[in-house]
Amino acid sequence: MSALHFSRVVIVGVGLIGGSLARALKRAGVVGEVVGVGRSPASLERALALGVIDRAASLEDAAQGASMIVLCAPVAQTFALLHALEPHLQPGTIVTDAGSTKSDVIMAAKTALGDKVAQFVPAHPIAGRELNGVEAALDDLYDGKKVVLCPLQENSRADVAAVRAMWETAGGVCEIMSAVQHDAVFAAVSHLPHLLSYALVAQVANAEDAALKLACAGGGFRDFTRIAASSPEMWRDICLANRDALLRELNTYQSVLAHLKAQIEAGNGDALERVFARASQARLQWGAERAAAADVES
Amino acid sequence: MSALHFSRVVIVGVGLIGGSLARALKRAGVVGEVVGVGRSPASLERALALGVIDRAASLEDAAQGASMIVLCAPVAQTFALLHALEPHLQPGTIVTDAGSTKSDVIMAAKTALGDKVAQFVPAHPIAGRELNGVEAALDDLYDGKKVVLCPLQENSRADVAAVRAMWETAGGVCEIMSAVQHDAVFAAVSHLPHLLSYALVAQVANAEDAALKLACAGGGFRDFTRIAASSPEMWRDICLANRDALLRELNTYQSVLAHLKAQIEAGNGDALERVFARASQARLQWGAERAAAADVES
Repeated sequence: MSALHFSRVVIVGVGLIGGSLARALKRAGVVGEVVGVGRSPASLERALALGVIDRAASLEDAAQGASMIVLCAPVAQTFALLHALEPHLQPGTIVTDAGSTKSDVIMAAKTALGDKVAQFVPAHPIAGRELNGVEAALDDLYDGKKVVLCPLQENSRADVAAVRAMWETAGGVCEIMSAVQHDAVFAAVSHLPHLLSYALVAQVANAEDAALKLACAGGGFRDFTRIAASSPEMWRDICLANRDALLRELNTYQSVLAHLKAQIEAGNGDALERVFARASQARLQWGAERAAAADVES
Repeated sequence: MSALHFSRVVIVGVGLIGGSLARALKRAGVVGEVVGVGRSPASLERALALGVIDRAASLEDAAQGASMIVLCAPVAQTFALLHALEPHLQPGTIVTDAGSTKSDVIMAAKTALGDKVAQFVPAHPIAGRELNGVEAALDDLYDGKKVVLCPLQENSRADVAAVRAMWETAGGVCEIMSAVQHDAVFAAVSHLPHLLSYALVAQVANAEDAALKLACAGGGFRDFTRIAASSPEMWRDICLANRDALLRELNTYQSVLAHLKAQIEAGNGDALERVFARASQARLQWGAERAAAADVES
């Protein structure tokens, strides 16, 4: 048996993210049993049938004797879930989450858990697929992927270390960041792109000639819009949960677009090309650095 | 020998697009010789060394005895190239192009070629890669890819048929469209997404905390920004060449973004989710239909 062992891990919200974590921990052989908690009995039954969880339970029952409780539900449910959990949360149990936003999750946790917030270690695995649901869960979804931890001042070093160990065992590469820093960064590189991709597909789908446009769309459209197939509920929650940081990035983006539009109207090819070249050079360098890092990891 | 045979195909601009066409025609064994014309002697030498072209020549020399001349240079060069070609363009030679915009190309062709515009059949293969240059050329780049033809009233049926046959031999699937229709469609599904992707990468790359943001960017950012690595010169030209249609789409997009922003500011999750769900459903359906079509083709 590995030095690391979780006798019971509770996954709250057994979809792509929670299901993949369960699969990865089972792959590593570090978990006694995985208990699933969720809104949809049908979804929990599929998780059971797929072997992703060992049994389903209510949050209250699952909390008894749990080593680790991982919230993998949409972030808007964080307060209600932690509020329901609080009376049943035992000393020694660690709670963590997989939410894409952190400031609002921490606010919800402090309100819902009171003094017990010391047991809550906020986290965010940077991984996903355009598919949702437990059927899409993969045991290698987190391999080589970044997991951001935003520990609270209240957290013990041991609890932070345990959450880090769980994610690293699941294949992730952990990094510590403040919640404010996390939310600003992901507003720019994840939340805003999702909003922009949804907006473009909505525009094309609502056009009079939508059928012709979609028939002519090629590889550029395919990649640009892959994230527009993501869960509407999840991204609604993220946009509202990270509202301030997202609006800051969106304001900047609207300015950038207005600048580009003015250059197109003025026929100013030099100014357009300068922006495009800056972006192209940055994107090529990013791709090269990522490829080099992947080579080192493998 | 195939019933279809081009004794000499001239590729003007031997990069990804022109080089891939040359390779595809050679793969099919339907071309006597491929002659390359270009601005950069070094690039033509690489094309020769790679066997993409059989020889390099000036536009004037290459035009002598050419069966087909294909313009694969950035669209802004169309007028200058056709103007230079016109005195040397022989009866019986067909000219076509691979430009991403069509109204402006046709305007340039009518001005530059005068009566000889009857020999010019406008076309646009919908294929590409994030890599540029002749080194990136592939003999299967066009396999199963759409090629839009926008024939002129002046074109003979035989010339249109020959251009169609060339692209189908290269692996493409041809479709006829008016130039206006073409430009509106591609402004929405290609040109606007490129502009949006360049804008997002420029914003992230210019941020104070660009290094941290880029280090945290994941798969969503990767796909959304793949097209931001495209040739800045080519996309500068396309944005200006298709200015009217692109500005119409950009105006609509700015309205969609303003609507989404207002919903985020108001905390109106229902309205946000409606737009996201519309987009998500449309994108999933598009992906499924594309996959089904690919199955039928293969």
